[in-house]
Amino acid sequence: METITIGLLGLGTVGKGVVTLLQKQAAKIARTQDFRFKLKSVAVHNRTRHQNDDLPAGTILTEKVTDVVDDPEIQIVIEAMGTIEPAKVAICQAILNGKSIISANKDLLATAGEEILRLAKTAKVDFFYEASVAGGIPILRVLSSSLETDKISQITGIINGTANYVLTAMDREDRDYATALKNAQELGYAEADPTNDVQGIDATYKLIILSRFAFGQSLRLADIPRRGITKISPAQLASAKQFKMKIKLLAVAKEAGHQLYSLVGPAAIPAAEPLAHVNGVQNAIAVQSDALGETTYTGPGAGAAPTANSILSDLLATGDDIVKGDCGREFNNYRKPAAAQSLTTVPQRYLITVEEDRSLTNSNYPDLFQQQTVGPHYWSGLTSVISRDTLEKLLHTLEKNGAKVSYLPIANSWQPVPQE
Amino acid sequence: METITIGLLGLGTVGKGVVTLLQKQAAKIARTQDFRFKLKSVAVHNRTRHQNDDLPAGTILTEKVTDVVDDPEIQIVIEAMGTIEPAKVAICQAILNGKSIISANKDLLATAGEEILRLAKTAKVDFFYEASVAGGIPILRVLSSSLETDKISQITGIINGTANYVLTAMDREDRDYATALKNAQELGYAEADPTNDVQGIDATYKLIILSRFAFGQSLRLADIPRRGITKISPAQLASAKQFKMKIKLLAVAKEAGHQLYSLVGPAAIPAAEPLAHVNGVQNAIAVQSDALGETTYTGPGAGAAPTANSILSDLLATGDDIVKGDCGREFNNYRKPAAAQSLTTVPQRYLITVEEDRSLTNSNYPDLFQQQTVGPHYWSGLTSVISRDTLEKLLHTLEKNGAKVSYLPIANSWQPVPQE
Repeated sequence: METITIGLLGLGTVGKGVVTLLQKQAAKIARTQDFRFKLKSVAVHNRTRHQNDDLPAGTILTEKVTDVVDDPEIQIVIEAMGTIEPAKVAICQAILNGKSIISANKDLLATAGEEILRLAKTAKVDFFYEASVAGGIPILRVLSSSLETDKISQITGIINGTANYVLTAMDREDRDYATALKNAQELGYAEADPTNDVQGIDATYKLIILSRFAFGQSLRLADIPRRGITKISPAQLASAKQFKMKIKLLAVAKEAGHQLYSLVGPAAIPAAEPLAHVNGVQNAIAVQSDALGETTYTGPGAGAAPTANSILSDLLATGDDIVKGDCGREFNNYRKPAAAQSLTTVPQRYLITVEEDRSLTNSNYPDLFQQQTVGPHYWSGLTSVISRDTLEKLLHTLEKNGAKVSYLPIANSWQPVPQE
Repeated sequence: METITIGLLGLGTVGKGVVTLLQKQAAKIARTQDFRFKLKSVAVHNRTRHQNDDLPAGTILTEKVTDVVDDPEIQIVIEAMGTIEPAKVAICQAILNGKSIISANKDLLATAGEEILRLAKTAKVDFFYEASVAGGIPILRVLSSSLETDKISQITGIINGTANYVLTAMDREDRDYATALKNAQELGYAEADPTNDVQGIDATYKLIILSRFAFGQSLRLADIPRRGITKISPAQLASAKQFKMKIKLLAVAKEAGHQLYSLVGPAAIPAAEPLAHVNGVQNAIAVQSDALGETTYTGPGAGAAPTANSILSDLLATGDDIVKGDCGREFNNYRKPAAAQSLTTVPQRYLITVEEDRSLTNSNYPDLFQQQTVGPHYWSGLTSVISRDTLEKLLHTLEKNGAKVSYLPIANSWQPVPQE
């Protein structure tokens, strides 16, 4: 039985999870594969902080990344550092040294991905990154194998567990944003600096990666209009509830006539849709495709064990290729020219919430609203499909009265016009 | 670019779906693969009935299965005949002739699967069958790749669309079983002879295949206790609703202490569980595993296009292996000795419904019932965890009064005791 030698960069939550799961599943891997893995060395920032970590006997703990990426014995490097810059240099050097790469680094893959993936292809090494999107949901492998023969028209994801946790807590416990965030931070579900999560940046990175697999198009960060959840008010959640909807931070990419319309931001989801029931730190991705219709994949979006499992599934795929001398196949080989459009500017329906002014009634805008309701401190209405222009005029008029006016798109009410 | 020649057995719903999708996705396949497919010949029972079918120009239509399985030019045979006997002979002959096989034939795979799969391994040909379980959900590939590194403890599936359609219609439209079934037959969701679907035989075949992938154990049909949905009454659905539960035909396999406990039959599912919201012909599979916790996969369980898509994903995997000269790897290579146990005999909770006798009240069985309710024509109660013995004594006592008594297990209340 062949032994495949691996090196690990980083021993934080994800790195430790990989070490644990690798030891735990060694027997099952030996039973089903014709190779075994040996973890040779782990590079960390500060060795003394990891002296008591539970590593397999004989594992080398080093502070030099080059001890891993330049070691001729190491065949696979698992990058679990998580930042863009030192990770990028380390990965490139490992690739140039002929090592296959496994990474969960969505920031790096979304921003510098195409460039590094080209390098890996040229060097004929494997580069897998299942854990970079929706930690424990095997969505990238599903898209690149089972859905490869289908034509995908839309991907809709709840792919940031922190944002979904905060919104779920606001909804269930009737809290405002600041209180719910503070609570999430205390419980470890939000970081001290939650910017990337609550502003939708993390979800945007993941949508960029998903869109490459689903549509073959590589979007840039600036291509995707983005709104965060920091301004969502209890009145908005209450008005959504009046219309039997839930507010979630969605990442959406929808192809129509070769154009790829996208957005990341909070949206109101009707209760009949499966994504409305995805709560807390759970992630879910709904895929609309020609042959399958809608398939939905639900599971944990983060956490040491789920992320480690995705990394281990990448490890098995790489190990298999190494044994067969067949490295260099791309994780995703679907590519088309990118044609980015904004999903925020197409005609759609909106949930409008007006606070601090209860003088408005049904009769004011009979043509625009399909339903309206008045709550204790707000008035809210559900528009028909209207243009962005009409929305802006409406908001402007409503604001004239000194009211606090907010709007949310209704999920799947988007009407992009194919431009063929 | 290499051309891979394929032959097709059967041109019913599934066969036609494959031909259509293959033509539709030819451009995408050419873009992402370094090979193309050519459909050379199709074997049908009666040629004249398929004269007007839309086949690619030059495709041979034959009534002789041997024209396909003995043709030296054909590299992959897609079996879409659907019955056990002639399909088995045809597949074995094709394997012996060195052809790779793709099949959606769950009956064959569940009953004679291990034997044919061994033959394929010996002959070093591929044998994939993603479409055999939950048509459009890529569950087998997920289990054999992404979940291969995890330890699965339970699989719970709604994997028969007909039964789920009938139960959903009974629940939503307040119909009895016979009316709901008749309606499903008229709409094409149930066959003229619905036995395999409504008696849980189809779901049992699928559970046998799922259990091989998830637990490495190959159960026999007789190992799995089975109940159908034919006796489910409107009163049972109404009493489930009283306790905020839904009745679904479940297929469950749960590993505890190396024993594999299983059942196929109707169960009451609390509304908080994702499977309670899977309606109509939709299928869903919930997987409990060590690293991931719960992941759920939802999608179409049948239909020409979803089934064809699963067959095409198998085709791509086989094509890839042929181009690389690497056929013969097994779809599932996880095997352990089977240790079958019944999940119906372990302690669990039950929903008891009593019709035609409303004399029973709370006070009769204060220790056994956690909650009780009285409906217009029935009385129902939710037991605590009780043994099978206690259940049977209870049913016996209740029946003494001349009442019609029925019971349903509560999903995930099963308490198998590990026997290590």
